[in-house]
Amino acid sequence: MSTPEAIPGADAVDADQVLRFLHTLQDQLCAMVLGHEAASARFREDIWERPEAIGGGGGRTRVFSGGEVFEQAGIGLSDVRGFSMPPSASAARPELAGCGFRAMGVSVVLHPRNPYLPTTHMNVRLFTATGSAQPIWWFGGGFDLTPFYPVLEDCQHWHATAKAVCDGFDSALYPAHKAWCDRYFFLKHRDEARGIGGLFFDDYHAPGFDASFAYMKAVGLGFIDAYAPLIERRKHQAYGERERQFQLYRRGRYVEFNLVWDRGTLFGLQSGGRTESILMSLPPEVRFEYGYQPEPGSPEARLSEFLKPRDWLTAT
Amino acid sequence: MSTPEAIPGADAVDADQVLRFLHTLQDQLCAMVLGHEAASARFREDIWERPEAIGGGGGRTRVFSGGEVFEQAGIGLSDVRGFSMPPSASAARPELAGCGFRAMGVSVVLHPRNPYLPTTHMNVRLFTATGSAQPIWWFGGGFDLTPFYPVLEDCQHWHATAKAVCDGFDSALYPAHKAWCDRYFFLKHRDEARGIGGLFFDDYHAPGFDASFAYMKAVGLGFIDAYAPLIERRKHQAYGERERQFQLYRRGRYVEFNLVWDRGTLFGLQSGGRTESILMSLPPEVRFEYGYQPEPGSPEARLSEFLKPRDWLTAT
Repeated sequence: MSTPEAIPGADAVDADQVLRFLHTLQDQLCAMVLGHEAASARFREDIWERPEAIGGGGGRTRVFSGGEVFEQAGIGLSDVRGFSMPPSASAARPELAGCGFRAMGVSVVLHPRNPYLPTTHMNVRLFTATGSAQPIWWFGGGFDLTPFYPVLEDCQHWHATAKAVCDGFDSALYPAHKAWCDRYFFLKHRDEARGIGGLFFDDYHAPGFDASFAYMKAVGLGFIDAYAPLIERRKHQAYGERERQFQLYRRGRYVEFNLVWDRGTLFGLQSGGRTESILMSLPPEVRFEYGYQPEPGSPEARLSEFLKPRDWLTAT
Repeated sequence: MSTPEAIPGADAVDADQVLRFLHTLQDQLCAMVLGHEAASARFREDIWERPEAIGGGGGRTRVFSGGEVFEQAGIGLSDVRGFSMPPSASAARPELAGCGFRAMGVSVVLHPRNPYLPTTHMNVRLFTATGSAQPIWWFGGGFDLTPFYPVLEDCQHWHATAKAVCDGFDSALYPAHKAWCDRYFFLKHRDEARGIGGLFFDDYHAPGFDASFAYMKAVGLGFIDAYAPLIERRKHQAYGERERQFQLYRRGRYVEFNLVWDRGTLFGLQSGGRTESILMSLPPEVRFEYGYQPEPGSPEARLSEFLKPRDWLTAT
């Protein structure tokens, strides 16, 4: 069933179906992580509720830390409601001011121990406006990679997987959502990307509910195809104190991005979100150092070349 | 010489005199730090200039790290000019929109190694509008203390010193600037103060230039009176891995405040300030931990009682 598209995104929304997918995806992601850890390894799980007074809903936060491969893995699911549209959502849609909302999603941040295995992030989400005359909804999400010692073939595998996910739907998606990712994960105060990017999208509704949901699902599952091979390739690569110290230093940039620039983090913290679930994205150990400059020509210096947005599929 | 106060703060400004004081203050602060370190200890000094295209000026950043007492000490002086008033400054003074500005100040953040010696911050500054019909200026500043294992007598010494500084000018200052400090250094997403506060003020001009400058000087020098005795008391106090780990965890809150809530940091990062000088406030080593809860009744649990604003001078 669908209503005529008087307003983009005004299809029938099957939120329950999306929520079932998100639960399954969270389980699959946890299984991917634990597949590399000791048999006794377990995620800590916190089921939480958001106060009814601010709209209700809740989440299922899972965090694993202190593993052999993953120093920390945060994999959260949330499904929250609010009585008034966040300004960040209604700014682009003035007709929604005064509506309530429901937002559900899965967010992942993985902080591996091995400095040759990149940190990574994935998020998929469905946003719906409640109380409007017609159902209004859109999907968002993406995944991105933050290497410390980047290897070109890993970056190319990452982006080739992203492109394959997109091309299953529309060949215009990869260039658009890759560019959006480059713009979003950028530290203006460092004139430097957070990593090598990947995909980022929001306001996705144009193909209708079923096709939009299918794309969101493909991005969520495609993240596993993109990252799992890197775990295998890099988890046992030898490293020393030098690489560890550089990883801790670079994690500082991850903190800077998440706390200064990430709209999702800031909106969550400033609007009464569950602080511990929002900040599980932060790395477990971090180092800040004034005026650090890598030795010219060193592997650490070469990282900066990888933090300029580029076309990875043709890069040499 | 002074002009009639048609606009508050419209006195003659002796900026050179303030700049001389700031240079001397920076030297005194560096001497306080090095007085506790090996004879060979030195600050790294970076003299930097701000591009003329955005207004010019510059600074003298000094950072010492890896000491026996101070894991990191950042003591910066800056004197920068801009062609258009920052929105954060002109919001409260619409008559200044379109004016240029000159801002000079000294900022200090000390991260001691011993968890019983609190982290501390001090800043004093002069802001002047340029290109307005009359000279417009104001002072700002303050100092605040962030303990990990607070001791009531240390907190009382801190606030008694702050009050003595203020009472030399006006008995209304301490209550007002203490309360302002409590409001400013507050992590809303944690419902927790950054520390036990101290003094914070801005827009200070009412008593005229000479008296306002005298107060700013007293705050800058009073910081040394407030902190130096704590160094002596705590720098050799025995501690173990437990206290160190708690210190690293609590430093995470310092990072959260500075990057999420501190208007000075955010304005600097978003307006082309010198990133390394702004972020020298961040602690050298930090730990983030999902869902940490101190053991009930432990010294770590008692910290939370100290992070609720209160009247320290009558506290028991």
